[in-house]
Amino acid sequence: MSKKRIEIYDTTLRDGMQTEGISFSLADKISIAQRLDSLGVDYIEGGYAGSNQKEMQFFDEMRKSGLKNSKLVAFGSTRRARIKAQDDTSLAAILATKARCAAIVGKTWDLHVKEVLKCSLSENLKICSESVSFLKKKGKEVLFDAEHFYDGYKHNSEYAMKVLTAAADAGADVIVLCDTNGGTLSEDIYAITKHVCQQFSSVRIGIHAHNDCDCATANSLAAVRAGACHIQGTLNGLGERCGNTNLFIVMPNLAYKMNKKVLNPKGLKMLTETSRFLWEICNVAPVMNMPYVGESAFAHKAGLHVDALRKNKATYEHIDPESIGNERRFLVSELSGKSNVMAKLEKAKIAQDKKLARKILQKVQDLENEGYQFEAADASFDLLVKKIMGTYKPAFELEKYHITVEQKPNGEPVTEATVKLKVNGVTEHVVAEGDGPVNALDAALRKALESFYPLIKEIRLIDYKVRVVNAKAGTAAKVRVVIESRDSDGLWGTVGVSENIIEASWQALVDSVEFKLHKG
Amino acid sequence: MSKKRIEIYDTTLRDGMQTEGISFSLADKISIAQRLDSLGVDYIEGGYAGSNQKEMQFFDEMRKSGLKNSKLVAFGSTRRARIKAQDDTSLAAILATKARCAAIVGKTWDLHVKEVLKCSLSENLKICSESVSFLKKKGKEVLFDAEHFYDGYKHNSEYAMKVLTAAADAGADVIVLCDTNGGTLSEDIYAITKHVCQQFSSVRIGIHAHNDCDCATANSLAAVRAGACHIQGTLNGLGERCGNTNLFIVMPNLAYKMNKKVLNPKGLKMLTETSRFLWEICNVAPVMNMPYVGESAFAHKAGLHVDALRKNKATYEHIDPESIGNERRFLVSELSGKSNVMAKLEKAKIAQDKKLARKILQKVQDLENEGYQFEAADASFDLLVKKIMGTYKPAFELEKYHITVEQKPNGEPVTEATVKLKVNGVTEHVVAEGDGPVNALDAALRKALESFYPLIKEIRLIDYKVRVVNAKAGTAAKVRVVIESRDSDGLWGTVGVSENIIEASWQALVDSVEFKLHKG
Repeated sequence: MSKKRIEIYDTTLRDGMQTEGISFSLADKISIAQRLDSLGVDYIEGGYAGSNQKEMQFFDEMRKSGLKNSKLVAFGSTRRARIKAQDDTSLAAILATKARCAAIVGKTWDLHVKEVLKCSLSENLKICSESVSFLKKKGKEVLFDAEHFYDGYKHNSEYAMKVLTAAADAGADVIVLCDTNGGTLSEDIYAITKHVCQQFSSVRIGIHAHNDCDCATANSLAAVRAGACHIQGTLNGLGERCGNTNLFIVMPNLAYKMNKKVLNPKGLKMLTETSRFLWEICNVAPVMNMPYVGESAFAHKAGLHVDALRKNKATYEHIDPESIGNERRFLVSELSGKSNVMAKLEKAKIAQDKKLARKILQKVQDLENEGYQFEAADASFDLLVKKIMGTYKPAFELEKYHITVEQKPNGEPVTEATVKLKVNGVTEHVVAEGDGPVNALDAALRKALESFYPLIKEIRLIDYKVRVVNAKAGTAAKVRVVIESRDSDGLWGTVGVSENIIEASWQALVDSVEFKLHKG
Repeated sequence: MSKKRIEIYDTTLRDGMQTEGISFSLADKISIAQRLDSLGVDYIEGGYAGSNQKEMQFFDEMRKSGLKNSKLVAFGSTRRARIKAQDDTSLAAILATKARCAAIVGKTWDLHVKEVLKCSLSENLKICSESVSFLKKKGKEVLFDAEHFYDGYKHNSEYAMKVLTAAADAGADVIVLCDTNGGTLSEDIYAITKHVCQQFSSVRIGIHAHNDCDCATANSLAAVRAGACHIQGTLNGLGERCGNTNLFIVMPNLAYKMNKKVLNPKGLKMLTETSRFLWEICNVAPVMNMPYVGESAFAHKAGLHVDALRKNKATYEHIDPESIGNERRFLVSELSGKSNVMAKLEKAKIAQDKKLARKILQKVQDLENEGYQFEAADASFDLLVKKIMGTYKPAFELEKYHITVEQKPNGEPVTEATVKLKVNGVTEHVVAEGDGPVNALDAALRKALESFYPLIKEIRLIDYKVRVVNAKAGTAAKVRVVIESRDSDGLWGTVGVSENIIEASWQALVDSVEFKLHKG
């Protein structure tokens, strides 16, 4: 019997944006969408159409670059009460994105229809039905998000089912049952979803769970057991309050524990690196103990367990960590990043040289202990490999840099950087101004190098992130700077670490320039 | 019908100690035990008897201070193979603790008996039986931890059940089914636990779950549905790899969602403060999105949700946050509309002044358009409100600051900051060094103000984050700096935005100092 495929729908770029303390730039959103496409998720929800300019720009950009594996979805709500579908701004905004699929949220809980929407129960049925058929007529694949469905079903199951019928009869392709408040336990999820699947055998049924009872994973799996074939969630379980269903957890549970088909084996092996990439983008510390993909997920501390593991690997691990691209760690003899590094070396076709690989591995581990992180800094990693292989030639030698910042009240701060360096024995000593010390330093570095290396003019710095690596000592702790650069060919990331933010930025700036000169 | 009581067994002090990066001092363990006793958990597992001196000292101390509500448990393993129970050092160590209860772990998975214990299956039955009866004869309440029970049952259910029979016949008071590797999903947990409960109707059955599939909560609840009456877990879900069952989550689920009796209403209302106390003891950043007790658990960002919440509190919350001692929060962010700010002002009791509220709202929106974000910067928001209300008095006037950074190759960069300011007409002009420009600026600001405002010495900067707000123009774009500060009373966040990272940091530093001086 062939495995049943479960559709994966990612809402990191919409519901995930509701996470406290997290916001994504346009460039962030694009690079997350590209990662999702590489993983092979079925749907990528791009954002709330029309909510702000950034959301619309994202859809424009995605139309240009395209997606290989995933379908792009624009999110919005059903039409407002007392308005025709063709006159509704929310539905118009969905069409304006030109995305192939539309997800619209409609009310199924009678209480919400009366108290929030403030219209009659029958008017809401018309709202749902007309909104779906309007979008279907425009050629969209339509997903109907039944908001508060489980709560609504408990209060008034007859009405909640009527709303689903209205959406299904209007041609919705998928009906998504939402546990919007996250308050439902698995037993109820199973029973209610089963009833829905029996009633709507010709429509695909999905679940959108929230984690307020710590049951989003179990609830999503219960829905699948009950007949659902579509799961919505976010990367790393981002989302408002306690977050949404964590795709990095629910996918391996489906694939390895329930024998369902999701992504493909290659996609599943990319889960751990994608999880870490996302933490970097969010600029927050990874959740160490996250199931499957966390750094601690296969870290063994108890001596007993380590000993038993040596005897038989199955004894204290529920799954092979490599199946999701993670790795076993023994906390007595820490080996972090090994599989990632080896995968990278294999990709660069230098893993066969065992001695070299070991040397690189050792260096990466030393640097990681100092606070470096190469997940979002491929270019710095490449340069590191070149340095160890002896194929790296520095483009210049620094003699010194010097920065001053002066601020007087009611005025812009004045920032000046000087850089003194040598290229092939020729000394350059230049000064430049900037909007801040790093910007001034970058300007001075380019000014000093441009006449020797005109290629440098093509580099654009597009993102700059700073994190305290060990937050215990506040601003005196080490900081990690990650810079993202691009030229017309592509993007690259570089990293620097120091107690001094300027020095860390300098390292990342230099790596960016050197990488560009090496790649040409 | 009276509610069924579910026993809560805490293993924070034993299994929780296996968490990566966490260790407890003797004093920590004692204060955690006292908190657990105040909560009213049924059992407190104090540690692995005889594993080291600290464990034994803990039991000595607890004997002196006593517990009001909870029973103390010493943990150990069944006797070794080929030794009599009375000659076994592990069992002797349990007796030496003088704890009222003993938990002993025995093997139920045939693979482990053969490959790890290296004895015959029948010998292991004798080991379990004799260890239990030895401790029973010494007057202990005995809990038998059936290690790897669910995996063992799947491989050889007949043998796994025989081990339980051996323990039960020897007089074990509680049989605890352990999902040691955390790899079992709820469906199997339910079916297997149900079978055990039917076979052993006169012994209490418990569950000890791990979170490797993100199902520890759901699995514990499934076991209760199947007939178990005893749940083991840890505070904040500490534990090896992905952690153990999180008691702060499973307890309110049992009490408020499944109508079971755990602790008492007073104990349940202490969960949030106990969770935060534990993070302090662990010296790690709290998990913001932890269900029920996390700071984000009832934090609302989407304007739509906030609007609906103001109309009816049940609409976007699955439970009253006060029932576990937590509170509702409204976040101010780019995605949120007017409703969030209004809700915040309502909480501060200044929303009645409509004109003032509108003025504040306008200012917040203007600042958000410039890149400010008040979500993680409550203190800056409070100061902003004070400024608009005219109740803000600045602590000083800046004349200028000046920073230099100089770097020569192979040396540490040298950073110096000068600050010239006036307090009540008195001019201060000071210089300080630091590990970076912000650190130096912070040092100089404190140096200039400390003699006027000694309170400043209490401020500790604990985190510092930088983000480019609009990433299009790279390092020349605006940056947002968020600083987290604390004193002995609590935490506060402040924010600054500028094209210049130093100026943005300065704003956040000044807000941190001003907030401290205003709150005292």
